[in-house]
Amino acid sequence: MADYRELWDSLDMDLEKHDQLCEVLPEFYGDIYMTQENRAEGMNYFNFVVSEIHGLRIKELNEHRKDGGKVFGSFCVFVPDEVIMAADGIGVGLCGGSDFWVPDGEKVLPRNMCPLIKASVGAKLSGTCPYFQSADMLVGETTCDGKKKAWEILGEYTPMHVMDLPQMKREKDYTHFKEEINTFKEKVEDLTGNKITLESLKEKIKLVNDKRRVLQRLYDARKSDKLPISGKDSLLITQVAFYDDPNRFIQKTNELCDELEERIEKNISVFKDDTPRILLTGTPMAIPNWKMHHLIETSGGAVVCEEACTGTKYFERLVDENITDLDSGLQALSDRYMGINCACFSPNEGRIEDIIRLYKEYNADGVIYNSLPFCHTYAIEYKKVKDALDKEGIPVMMIESDYSMQDAGQINTRLEAFFEMISMNKELAI
Amino acid sequence: MADYRELWDSLDMDLEKHDQLCEVLPEFYGDIYMTQENRAEGMNYFNFVVSEIHGLRIKELNEHRKDGGKVFGSFCVFVPDEVIMAADGIGVGLCGGSDFWVPDGEKVLPRNMCPLIKASVGAKLSGTCPYFQSADMLVGETTCDGKKKAWEILGEYTPMHVMDLPQMKREKDYTHFKEEINTFKEKVEDLTGNKITLESLKEKIKLVNDKRRVLQRLYDARKSDKLPISGKDSLLITQVAFYDDPNRFIQKTNELCDELEERIEKNISVFKDDTPRILLTGTPMAIPNWKMHHLIETSGGAVVCEEACTGTKYFERLVDENITDLDSGLQALSDRYMGINCACFSPNEGRIEDIIRLYKEYNADGVIYNSLPFCHTYAIEYKKVKDALDKEGIPVMMIESDYSMQDAGQINTRLEAFFEMISMNKELAI
Repeated sequence: MADYRELWDSLDMDLEKHDQLCEVLPEFYGDIYMTQENRAEGMNYFNFVVSEIHGLRIKELNEHRKDGGKVFGSFCVFVPDEVIMAADGIGVGLCGGSDFWVPDGEKVLPRNMCPLIKASVGAKLSGTCPYFQSADMLVGETTCDGKKKAWEILGEYTPMHVMDLPQMKREKDYTHFKEEINTFKEKVEDLTGNKITLESLKEKIKLVNDKRRVLQRLYDARKSDKLPISGKDSLLITQVAFYDDPNRFIQKTNELCDELEERIEKNISVFKDDTPRILLTGTPMAIPNWKMHHLIETSGGAVVCEEACTGTKYFERLVDENITDLDSGLQALSDRYMGINCACFSPNEGRIEDIIRLYKEYNADGVIYNSLPFCHTYAIEYKKVKDALDKEGIPVMMIESDYSMQDAGQINTRLEAFFEMISMNKELAI
Repeated sequence: MADYRELWDSLDMDLEKHDQLCEVLPEFYGDIYMTQENRAEGMNYFNFVVSEIHGLRIKELNEHRKDGGKVFGSFCVFVPDEVIMAADGIGVGLCGGSDFWVPDGEKVLPRNMCPLIKASVGAKLSGTCPYFQSADMLVGETTCDGKKKAWEILGEYTPMHVMDLPQMKREKDYTHFKEEINTFKEKVEDLTGNKITLESLKEKIKLVNDKRRVLQRLYDARKSDKLPISGKDSLLITQVAFYDDPNRFIQKTNELCDELEERIEKNISVFKDDTPRILLTGTPMAIPNWKMHHLIETSGGAVVCEEACTGTKYFERLVDENITDLDSGLQALSDRYMGINCACFSPNEGRIEDIIRLYKEYNADGVIYNSLPFCHTYAIEYKKVKDALDKEGIPVMMIESDYSMQDAGQINTRLEAFFEMISMNKELAI
């Protein structure tokens, strides 16, 4: 990707350090992704996107900015992309998924913190992520204590706006979030210089819904008895959805889905029969965090669904497209986004219902509850989820793990035992 | 305290386990408190309170409940006692400050969590805290992820009401908290069967303000060049304020203050001249957590002020007593409570101003930033505080520590080095 050095330099990046990152990623990706057999042809686009991860898209962002457009970086599925797009802005997801950035994050944050936050802050501080460097504004939110307080520190380095997400889901909390979306809209209008109109908002609600529809289509293919795609590949597609051009992403993913549906008709699967089908639930997996999927799918399991921000939380449920004015547009956005059952809410019974529903919809055999370390909300919520799943007779296992591969062997052993138990249960049930 | 066994039994306590707790506390208290020399006579009342910690006050709560009164247990300085009292309820602070309760908390909560939350939940689950057993309702709040989610679990064992504390301090957040106080008021009225009137609210605002006034008087005595009382004793008094009868507490603390002011006039100090004066800032120290004070004051320092929930956050600033109706009463409560500069708010610049102000007011020589482990909000906020104190030339040291005494030696060493550095700085300044 040597062609982009000039561009990166213009973004005030630490080129030397960035070279180190560029050196490891292709091999890392190759080991995890290119070793898979019988992948769909349509995955070539996503291979290409990863190979160009700090290139082509950054060039597009740069051209957009040269033309006077603005780029907004966000860290959470509660930030409404529709608002950014309706003002001709581009939104990119910035959550850090690599160990590479953790040490720089630890220069300003406590070590006893979730690696996602440390990596996100470290990515900015180290000047090695061109997406951070391309963002004209970062948009934080108050979903957890770690993020809420980390934005104060990140704000010392770059312009930030923080959306105040409610902690409960009463009627007044929906109104509160609608007001927050309105405040955000004003910020976006100020920065872009573009007024959001009913027409532009409607158009972008439709566009983002289309992205949700194609992701749902992809996930529907994973409900099939014969799995036409690995969980690992599906995760990658969801991760790419956070920063790729939405129209291109929709087109390419639809093309892939055509192929996947053909595979289903032809009974083509990327897994052996009787591979335990796993619903993964828990904390987000930011690119390039493919660890848990990789461990599961090299230990004899298949991930069929992610109840996570990088999963169903991102695309399930559409924003109402029949809005009649800006106010009803904001309400529709609040209604859709507040419907996400994040562990930051109290109570959060809806998530338990989601997990049980998804378990059935995706015909899963077991649930893996995956939490990044020091994530209080998801770690504490495990008890309620486990109690509910126990009652339903659904096998569940909790794995807490960060970005390093040091615990890979240990997790492998646990996974193999879990899958063996599942397989035995299935045999007994026949 | 054998006289109380019947009472404890009636509260559905685990008497055997409780005996274990009762066995260790007197010795623990003796070692830490009774070894101090030259204590004020007025401390005898507080010695007595501790010796009767699970006795006399529990009997009072029991009599109150027999007469149809209700008891509310809370965990945070944001819960307005005035509202509870105005409906003839009694409020008691329930935060767990002992390692004894941590293992029971860990049965339902993750281990990677702050010991205060684990101990609080463990105290209920183990049935060994008569205050928990005497509470007709627990009142939680959303000050941190750990507590917010722990209340969901605690709510499985006992009736709970959760107050939604805002995460920012904009005008609308003040209004939001006023509404939360109003919702709480309705809950309290429902449970007690007593309507809160302007008169009863005014009266209790005055009473709680009087408690704040006497604590301020106590703290004012600590501003003196000659310290008439140890930090350890002051902390105990603040801790007792959370559950003692308010009128008696005010009277006894005023009596103590008379004595302390006499001591000041007579130049009587409990510390040697030139003992480094420490402002302690950070997470709450729930009874019987006296660890940090004990370590500081046996390592050659003196704690002159606590910028903490068990300190200035609890009593500084009064509620406006000139309210004209219930609505203005709720507004006055919201204004006072929202003025607390807790690390749960973002941004929280007011806390930095408080720390610098208190450092000067109490004529401190250095700041110790004390955080319970896994407290994200306080741990992350340290960077901003340190940056500001560095700018002011104020020495600061961070100590993260839980309830166990395993790290006591290590902390001692760090403290001694810190105090030596402070003393050298002072000598150089002369």
